[in-house]
Amino acid sequence: MSVIFERVAILGIGLIGSSIAHAARQTGAAGTVAFYDTNEATRKRARELGLGEICDTPGDAVANADLVILAVPVGAMGAAAASVKDNLKPGAIVTDTGSVKRSVIDAVAPNLPEHVFLIPGHPLAGTEHSGPDAGFATLFVGRWQILTPVADARADYAAAADKLEAFWRALGADVERMDPDRHDVVLAVTSHLPHLIAFNIVAMAEDLEGVTESEVVKYSASGFRDFTRIAASDPTMWRDVFLNNRDAVLEVLGRFSEDLSALQRAIRWGEGEKLYDIFDRARRMRREVIDAGQDTAAPNWGRDKS
Amino acid sequence: MSVIFERVAILGIGLIGSSIAHAARQTGAAGTVAFYDTNEATRKRARELGLGEICDTPGDAVANADLVILAVPVGAMGAAAASVKDNLKPGAIVTDTGSVKRSVIDAVAPNLPEHVFLIPGHPLAGTEHSGPDAGFATLFVGRWQILTPVADARADYAAAADKLEAFWRALGADVERMDPDRHDVVLAVTSHLPHLIAFNIVAMAEDLEGVTESEVVKYSASGFRDFTRIAASDPTMWRDVFLNNRDAVLEVLGRFSEDLSALQRAIRWGEGEKLYDIFDRARRMRREVIDAGQDTAAPNWGRDKS
Repeated sequence: MSVIFERVAILGIGLIGSSIAHAARQTGAAGTVAFYDTNEATRKRARELGLGEICDTPGDAVANADLVILAVPVGAMGAAAASVKDNLKPGAIVTDTGSVKRSVIDAVAPNLPEHVFLIPGHPLAGTEHSGPDAGFATLFVGRWQILTPVADARADYAAAADKLEAFWRALGADVERMDPDRHDVVLAVTSHLPHLIAFNIVAMAEDLEGVTESEVVKYSASGFRDFTRIAASDPTMWRDVFLNNRDAVLEVLGRFSEDLSALQRAIRWGEGEKLYDIFDRARRMRREVIDAGQDTAAPNWGRDKS
Repeated sequence: MSVIFERVAILGIGLIGSSIAHAARQTGAAGTVAFYDTNEATRKRARELGLGEICDTPGDAVANADLVILAVPVGAMGAAAASVKDNLKPGAIVTDTGSVKRSVIDAVAPNLPEHVFLIPGHPLAGTEHSGPDAGFATLFVGRWQILTPVADARADYAAAADKLEAFWRALGADVERMDPDRHDVVLAVTSHLPHLIAFNIVAMAEDLEGVTESEVVKYSASGFRDFTRIAASDPTMWRDVFLNNRDAVLEVLGRFSEDLSALQRAIRWGEGEKLYDIFDRARRMRREVIDAGQDTAAPNWGRDKS
């Protein structure tokens, strides 16, 4: 495969940043990958792992970069952009990997010079692991990369967006373009609420009347363990998601609670038919998710094979 | 391995019943396995699959059986017991696989003759699939089988419980004994609430203001897909669980909603530290679940390997 960007700079060396480096190297989509992370221990670890050119200042990382990827928590995006503002090459593309798009645009755009192209993005890919050791080259394969281009009247903005799209396709992703506000509403449903619910049920189980934490752990394979996986995701990243997508999350959370109250009432009053109907509807959605190639059909995700 | 029960009769040919037959055959723990299911199509399918001796009446199945396993939904346990009451061999052990124990004991015990031993049980094992095709021999390997012996003063009751325990160990399960009421409270936390939450979030996503079902499916890999797996479980089974463990479920659901309201408030008021603390606590529990051997440590359960 031919090189799409000669020099890619990534700010933030976590699961996503390190996975981009692995994937770009494996596919040849980038000439060189340079990194910066505000955490010195993380930079040291990245050097040990040989992830790429690890720079000691953000300016060194982005100097001469054709593509700059902000791969830090959503709440740190504005500061990351500001830290490289004066070092960005004219014509460079600046993107990000944040799980919220409107607030990132609001925080990043004012911190960029006019001579670069801001094309925000969000790879719908991840695992419950985080940090520079967590990355791997196939993380984006067959996953969605959502780009949320901003209003930009320049003639070459469209070409820049196409080039960024080609880069993500080279890493194996499917690419969609979406309005940033729409992205934030859709992801509130498909990602932010599920994570919030998982965090809540797992944190709750630590401190229960009458059931010990060790009992919950011991018998967790009966359902609870599934929630512990997504609740193991990076707490800083998720704190920032909820602080920065507040309105959409509160909206969908309101609907969740309303529906849960209806279920609660059906249980209290022994309304078996109502429960059956709700459970049966939920079951159909599983088939659709599998048919859409978004999950494996293997029972228990194949994890219990002995 | 030597035969533990010469003839095992299983009422209900679903995931659990068929898995017991596969496991008993593979391990040699049972001489013969006889089945009955009230659904004629299910009996026909079980014959095609060669699961064992498929009988056309429950009485034929349990005649001369040393162990009778009621593997039907919790709400059908009483009727299943009544249907074989007059055909049980003196000294036979009667057990069940229900996810709720107190209500099953209350429904089954009055329907049994005095000359058998009732030793209720619950295998904490399953997948999102159901029916006679879903079973496999290793379903119980390394999973808990909880026995909830009843008050029974007969001298040979303890020996009967030990024999049943040996049978489950032969199938690969770890066996624990527990008080039935305690079982129902612990499982309300580790299993019933997680399933209820999953059913709720998945059913909710079918009918949302502003986000289509196909969008939810399309972007489900960002978190939502995990919930669809357990929401694909058998709706009849789960309806009966909630109807029959009402008090414990409502209790823990109350606590869940209370904690969720606190999270909601923290989001509304931008309380980042509070969110971080809750998410960070939840993360620790994942490590404990893995250390306890209750889940794989592979990122994303290994399902996304390409």
